[in-house]
Amino acid sequence: MKQTNKRKPTTEQVSELTTNRLSVYLRCLNQLEAAGVETISSQALAQQFHLNAAQIRKDLAYFGEFGVRGVGYYVKDLKRHLRQILGLDRRLRVAVMGAGNLGLALADYPGFRREGFEIVALFDVSAEKIGEHSRSGVPILDLKDLRRHVRRDRIDIVVIAVPAESGQFVLDQVVTAGVKAVLNFSPGALKAPAGIKLKNVDLTVSLESLSFYLAQDEGGE
Amino acid sequence: MKQTNKRKPTTEQVSELTTNRLSVYLRCLNQLEAAGVETISSQALAQQFHLNAAQIRKDLAYFGEFGVRGVGYYVKDLKRHLRQILGLDRRLRVAVMGAGNLGLALADYPGFRREGFEIVALFDVSAEKIGEHSRSGVPILDLKDLRRHVRRDRIDIVVIAVPAESGQFVLDQVVTAGVKAVLNFSPGALKAPAGIKLKNVDLTVSLESLSFYLAQDEGGE
Repeated sequence: MKQTNKRKPTTEQVSELTTNRLSVYLRCLNQLEAAGVETISSQALAQQFHLNAAQIRKDLAYFGEFGVRGVGYYVKDLKRHLRQILGLDRRLRVAVMGAGNLGLALADYPGFRREGFEIVALFDVSAEKIGEHSRSGVPILDLKDLRRHVRRDRIDIVVIAVPAESGQFVLDQVVTAGVKAVLNFSPGALKAPAGIKLKNVDLTVSLESLSFYLAQDEGGE
Repeated sequence: MKQTNKRKPTTEQVSELTTNRLSVYLRCLNQLEAAGVETISSQALAQQFHLNAAQIRKDLAYFGEFGVRGVGYYVKDLKRHLRQILGLDRRLRVAVMGAGNLGLALADYPGFRREGFEIVALFDVSAEKIGEHSRSGVPILDLKDLRRHVRRDRIDIVVIAVPAESGQFVLDQVVTAGVKAVLNFSPGALKAPAGIKLKNVDLTVSLESLSFYLAQDEGGE
């Protein structure tokens, strides 16, 4: 097997697909740990969670030597390493733009909190909503005050959940307020200046993979 | 370059990561078509949308010969082919379980409709919600009547957007009602019988890739 580069890779070298896979591995390890599993081989990990064993080994080798010959991976150790690689060994503070159904759902999404993300605020422009709270108690603040809150509450990541037509306006506000990482659920292409990491989430992709499955199933030879 | 198998692959042979990438390519082609672009090379496609040109060629070669030497891909043709491969050349009928914030947001998500998915109904157990409509007019029906509606409305795909503790109960209802493809946004592991395609969406994965970016940025050498 080829020796992989063990130096800490830069962001540019690691594709988003890789970090997505690391997140998936982390999720699997959480389940294994909860089930009391202490060690696991890449083969077993792949089989149990329908992953690719060679890909797992390649992805992990990129960041260091985590496997132990004849043992596989120590679940707790690998989990800790992955959390470190993903920057999850500290709490990240998140604000959600837009207190509509999607924004409220995201603010209360239990997975975020569980993985160390703290949803500190929702922002909206509607006078009716400002001053209210999401079901889990996240306050809805005035978009006008975004800059002040970003600074005071040290907001690391912003999630955009506003209608398509407001997406770019809100992103511009977020960038001006000094936030460097943005997760966009708003449909339509947004433009962010250099130095801002903008990640678009398209929920349609998941539905399309089911459509593919149904098409194959019905067209079955 | 190795010759790839040109026969229509079965579902088992095509990983979910591949279909996810096909969806992403389709999304890019939509943008190119809207911008009036008629042909594009895999290199240009990769560069413009931060993808991997070799991966694009490999993914597409798997389903047939779509590229034209010296030209690249015809945007309209490739788009049509991808829609066919993904089973999007017909309307798929979708129901959403749970008329909470997430369910309502998903029922009104503009991307679904644009890509040919028709959200025909929301289902809930709350007497307050049953009989109401989402903002875009999707009716909220009684979960008790699911089976009847699945048959009558020919529902292809169900989206689960209920709290974690109701996830398995609702999935069981959906399976009993005869639906074969399920997209689950509910946290926690659900068990589906063989023959049911269950796809879990974990929104945390997207946030974690931003966390990775921030960690690299701050730890920058």
